[in-house]
Amino acid sequence: MSISDFRADLGDIPVEDHPRIVQQRSRDHYWYSPILKAKLDHVTAEIVVSPRSNAEVKTVLAAAFRHGVAITPRGAGTGNYGQAMPLSGGAMLNLMNMDKVLEIKPDRVRAQAGAVLEQMDHQTRESVNGELRFHPSTYRMASIGGFIAGGSGGVGSIRWGGLRNIGSILGVKVITCEENPRELDLVGEDILKVAHAYGTNGIIVEAEMPLTQAHDWVDMIVGFDDFIEACRFGGAVALQDGLLVKEVAPCAAPIPQDYFNRHKPYIRDGQSVVLLMVAPVAVDAMTLFVAHHKGEMLYRSDEASAEELKRLPPVYELAWNHTTLRALKVDPTITYLQTRYPTVAHVEKIISILGDELPMHIEVGRQDGVVMYGGLPLVRYTTEERLNEIIRIHEENGCAVFNPHRYTLEEGGMKRTDQKQLDFKREADPKGMLNPGKMIAWDDPNFDFNAGRVWLFDGLNPVNAA
Amino acid sequence: MSISDFRADLGDIPVEDHPRIVQQRSRDHYWYSPILKAKLDHVTAEIVVSPRSNAEVKTVLAAAFRHGVAITPRGAGTGNYGQAMPLSGGAMLNLMNMDKVLEIKPDRVRAQAGAVLEQMDHQTRESVNGELRFHPSTYRMASIGGFIAGGSGGVGSIRWGGLRNIGSILGVKVITCEENPRELDLVGEDILKVAHAYGTNGIIVEAEMPLTQAHDWVDMIVGFDDFIEACRFGGAVALQDGLLVKEVAPCAAPIPQDYFNRHKPYIRDGQSVVLLMVAPVAVDAMTLFVAHHKGEMLYRSDEASAEELKRLPPVYELAWNHTTLRALKVDPTITYLQTRYPTVAHVEKIISILGDELPMHIEVGRQDGVVMYGGLPLVRYTTEERLNEIIRIHEENGCAVFNPHRYTLEEGGMKRTDQKQLDFKREADPKGMLNPGKMIAWDDPNFDFNAGRVWLFDGLNPVNAA
Repeated sequence: MSISDFRADLGDIPVEDHPRIVQQRSRDHYWYSPILKAKLDHVTAEIVVSPRSNAEVKTVLAAAFRHGVAITPRGAGTGNYGQAMPLSGGAMLNLMNMDKVLEIKPDRVRAQAGAVLEQMDHQTRESVNGELRFHPSTYRMASIGGFIAGGSGGVGSIRWGGLRNIGSILGVKVITCEENPRELDLVGEDILKVAHAYGTNGIIVEAEMPLTQAHDWVDMIVGFDDFIEACRFGGAVALQDGLLVKEVAPCAAPIPQDYFNRHKPYIRDGQSVVLLMVAPVAVDAMTLFVAHHKGEMLYRSDEASAEELKRLPPVYELAWNHTTLRALKVDPTITYLQTRYPTVAHVEKIISILGDELPMHIEVGRQDGVVMYGGLPLVRYTTEERLNEIIRIHEENGCAVFNPHRYTLEEGGMKRTDQKQLDFKREADPKGMLNPGKMIAWDDPNFDFNAGRVWLFDGLNPVNAA
Repeated sequence: MSISDFRADLGDIPVEDHPRIVQQRSRDHYWYSPILKAKLDHVTAEIVVSPRSNAEVKTVLAAAFRHGVAITPRGAGTGNYGQAMPLSGGAMLNLMNMDKVLEIKPDRVRAQAGAVLEQMDHQTRESVNGELRFHPSTYRMASIGGFIAGGSGGVGSIRWGGLRNIGSILGVKVITCEENPRELDLVGEDILKVAHAYGTNGIIVEAEMPLTQAHDWVDMIVGFDDFIEACRFGGAVALQDGLLVKEVAPCAAPIPQDYFNRHKPYIRDGQSVVLLMVAPVAVDAMTLFVAHHKGEMLYRSDEASAEELKRLPPVYELAWNHTTLRALKVDPTITYLQTRYPTVAHVEKIISILGDELPMHIEVGRQDGVVMYGGLPLVRYTTEERLNEIIRIHEENGCAVFNPHRYTLEEGGMKRTDQKQLDFKREADPKGMLNPGKMIAWDDPNFDFNAGRVWLFDGLNPVNAA
């Protein structure tokens, strides 16, 4: 591998090599996990390359192939799994210069990978009163390419399911890492070859997404004395198809009091809350529904003053992993888990065992059409052993854990090899230059996922060193 | 009661009193049921009154109150429960002259009661690319007021649930039948006072409904050799929130072969079908999904010729009670039931017992957020006793029946008194002039719903005769 030879082949494609800047741009939000933080803190690329077109991406990938330089693609770097951390050094491929919205139709939008989600929605609202079905809580920063490569759903999943569900992505354009990189347009089932593959098997440069009717979503915070009542209310909302919502997130006390700095004046001591985003057309019905469930309407943005609206972040920036982020800002010892509770009774059981060690945060969503209590509980972290114990307690009680303290595709969620993604990597990245170390199946086909051991990628070394 | 005194008070409000025309306009589609047909065939009003404004409706209702004339409101008369049949004679209140769309916003529409659903959608599509969430299969004729007063859901219920679910109706304006009729604007929970009340407790003159994103829905017909596979496919579609559909209806062979005259050239002998309406944005994903489920794509409107599109009715006119209508046109001995199968296993069980006596037709929908197999099976009718036996077989096997062979609110679906509707009738129709005989609770508070006997309204007589 020769970074200088690689660089020499890039022509006038913008490159950054100042070590401190490169290291800054080599980070994602892996540091929500103390375990990933310990493992990845020293990881850095050698240069950052910022192509401005598909042709320039091809130039970069051909050079990487030729010179054996590892390529780690990166959007806004808002992921939490270390998915954009360059384990083998090499080059960060920054796609944020490719941020154009290419085409808007009444029911779909096509954009370059680096287009920021909020910016896309601005344009599609303006043009066809449409918006993306879902977005992460990092809406204002995250790119569409990064969301597809590293995300799985978010705000809107209560209505539309997950990003990898059939119909959620209409098409992606991917560039391969070969001697002569190819542009491949993937549609239908082929989209799953690269969706949530962390850019390990092709660089997503464009995506086409369905649009749904845009709404000026009304933020609401509803209080309950009892967190389980808050969960029951959240589940009941999710079952009302006529009650159009985009976000339903119960957060147990003392999360709102301790970590929602701007909103806490609205919330009484001991109160748990449900965060809601409600379509204006459903506001009256929701008000009624809240009263029926004996919830207390603590805040609604449609009745807030201009000063309040200016001061308060949107509710989605209290939810998903922004809940964790807000907790971390106050208490750096906090971390989190990613879990799934089939019923409210499961939530109740886990709380009865773990209590305040695991301040509970639920994202109510639909998984294959069924209402599901997705957990993003905070964890008052002590040791890795105790964290593993907490995971074990979940699993023993019938609650799945998608471990956010692992940086590989398989360990973080899929729990097994995705054969389609592996096969596609053989085709699109035959030398294994793309985001090395993230797909276990590529590096260690005999890895035993049931052994429970941490997979140690011996990266941080050049791949395919001559 | 004096019709002539009543009429004298109507000023220049249009009135029709030619007996044959009045009788024609006194009909709804009760005749899908041989039992209702026998009971109601001779029912007719004495005059038809066709007001053109809320003020004229008030004039009519004040006169009815004063002179003791029964008033039966009517939209397009497309209901199947005899809900618009004037059991006590008197006046039909034809609301189809009040058909204006009053206001369109991006997420809602307000219209007069007589506005035809298809016409409303034309205007809202044109203006804000929006459409109503759901409509009956009588979309081209039915009015919004009639749909709210007599319907419960339909095409779109797969996505949005039912008409009486919270959030499905934003508001209604109702006129009371009193000495001085009042205009009441009902919102929130109060809407349920008159939704699906057959106009027994107030005349709906305006309604405000949510709009959703309009689509040029693609009709599809998918074939399966086995009907149970067709149901499983339908259920699987319903669970895919990313696969945007408006209609999913499995119809067992020989329904399509025998009754879908225009479409039958597309369908092989013995094939069962699933009728689908798919958003263009979901067509590729659906094609994939069909292939996965080993369905055969028999027809899709987006690939049909101009000639085919002209010749073939839209798929929704094969579904809901249009299935029954098409069967009736071919075989006048056919009738139907309205049932609910909690699972496909329930469907299978009923078919195993009843076989071809009950050609199966399912409307897959969501009921309180849960996928449900709503049944509209055809029945090869022999006797009322046998029909009751078929109902009993359903109930014994855990499948609810909403008997479409009864014309009262309670017997047709609710199975019990709706106290809110009854209380509102006391307030809005103190003399009981509105659609007499349809609300058992009003006429016979001691009626025992568990006795299983048919409630015999001794109507066809003047109400409140002096």
